[in-house]
Amino acid sequence: DDDELRRGKPACHIAYGEATAILAGDALQCLAFELLSAPHPSFTANIQLDLSHTLAKAIGHQGMAGGQMLDLAASGKAITLDQLNRIHYLKTGALIQASILMGAKAHSMVDEHALTALTEFGYWLGLGFQIRDDILDMTGTTEQLGKPQGSDHLNDKTTYPVLLGLEQAEAKAQDCFDRAATLLQQIPGHTELLYELGRYLIIRAA
Amino acid sequence: DDDELRRGKPACHIAYGEATAILAGDALQCLAFELLSAPHPSFTANIQLDLSHTLAKAIGHQGMAGGQMLDLAASGKAITLDQLNRIHYLKTGALIQASILMGAKAHSMVDEHALTALTEFGYWLGLGFQIRDDILDMTGTTEQLGKPQGSDHLNDKTTYPVLLGLEQAEAKAQDCFDRAATLLQQIPGHTELLYELGRYLIIRAA
Repeated sequence: DDDELRRGKPACHIAYGEATAILAGDALQCLAFELLSAPHPSFTANIQLDLSHTLAKAIGHQGMAGGQMLDLAASGKAITLDQLNRIHYLKTGALIQASILMGAKAHSMVDEHALTALTEFGYWLGLGFQIRDDILDMTGTTEQLGKPQGSDHLNDKTTYPVLLGLEQAEAKAQDCFDRAATLLQQIPGHTELLYELGRYLIIRAA
Repeated sequence: DDDELRRGKPACHIAYGEATAILAGDALQCLAFELLSAPHPSFTANIQLDLSHTLAKAIGHQGMAGGQMLDLAASGKAITLDQLNRIHYLKTGALIQASILMGAKAHSMVDEHALTALTEFGYWLGLGFQIRDDILDMTGTTEQLGKPQGSDHLNDKTTYPVLLGLEQAEAKAQDCFDRAATLLQQIPGHTELLYELGRYLIIRAA
């Protein structure tokens, strides 16, 4: 893997070595579950379990880890748009979606209707983020991105602009943002931050 | 690391490559928390949270991952018996102890007194296991062990027989087993399996 920069700084495995980076990942993954299961005055045990379960499903073999494995397996192979969607949903979308749902579930006032809308919002947010990430990997500079430009190409990865062309990929990203923004209108309460998050992730120029 | 065999078969990272092995570890760690947080007819949410928390504390930065990091940092350096005890408690003892406690906590009939005795039992079981593991790495064969004999020496690791000599290490292992067995006598109910587990882990010849 040639991705040796993150946010303009050396990636963890470059700065500290692979063994330390792997252990840091193990420890941080575990810390999330340690925090979610620690006795807490504001949450019932049922809510805490639900949050743990939501996170676990999003990052495991049927979420992020599974998506990363599919991504590795697809490297250097031609894949369809459906396959690419599935990889990206699992690899990045599922955790973005879970993060939004966990915030909502932690609040007892959020009802089933809002949770359904937020689930769909999270889906389009994740997909839009990934399409933008693919576009920027092709059009941005390493300095703008904080990670090496062109790494998808170097790693022989199928991306949205490769499959659709830049113009169609751009239209698809905009469509994701529009769908996400429309879903927010179904949710009572303050959704401005979620709207801005969508704009930041999907519409950003770098 | 030269440990390329486990139970006589190639280690995961040898058989499937490092990236796959890392992802399998991530996914399996997460699967434990997914299962512990899944709705279950026999356990209350409070017990499930307690089990999750017990596991998380045992394997994270103040448990297994932390111990593995200390072990890496100590490689090639002279360390004291206290430091060695701490590394091994964190690296392997904490999870052995947690496994025993989780079984006990899952049973509503187990009282505080028994939990305290089992916590101490788990400590001596973990330490005795590690001392035996160190002894066998020096005296066993690769065929008996299912992993490469002498790998501690190759990896320049301080072990109990290196610090204490073989005879003293053997006496220390026996002492761990005796302490563990005595603690079991304080616990009502059937503890024969735990006794045999102790004998298997600490007294085994290979």
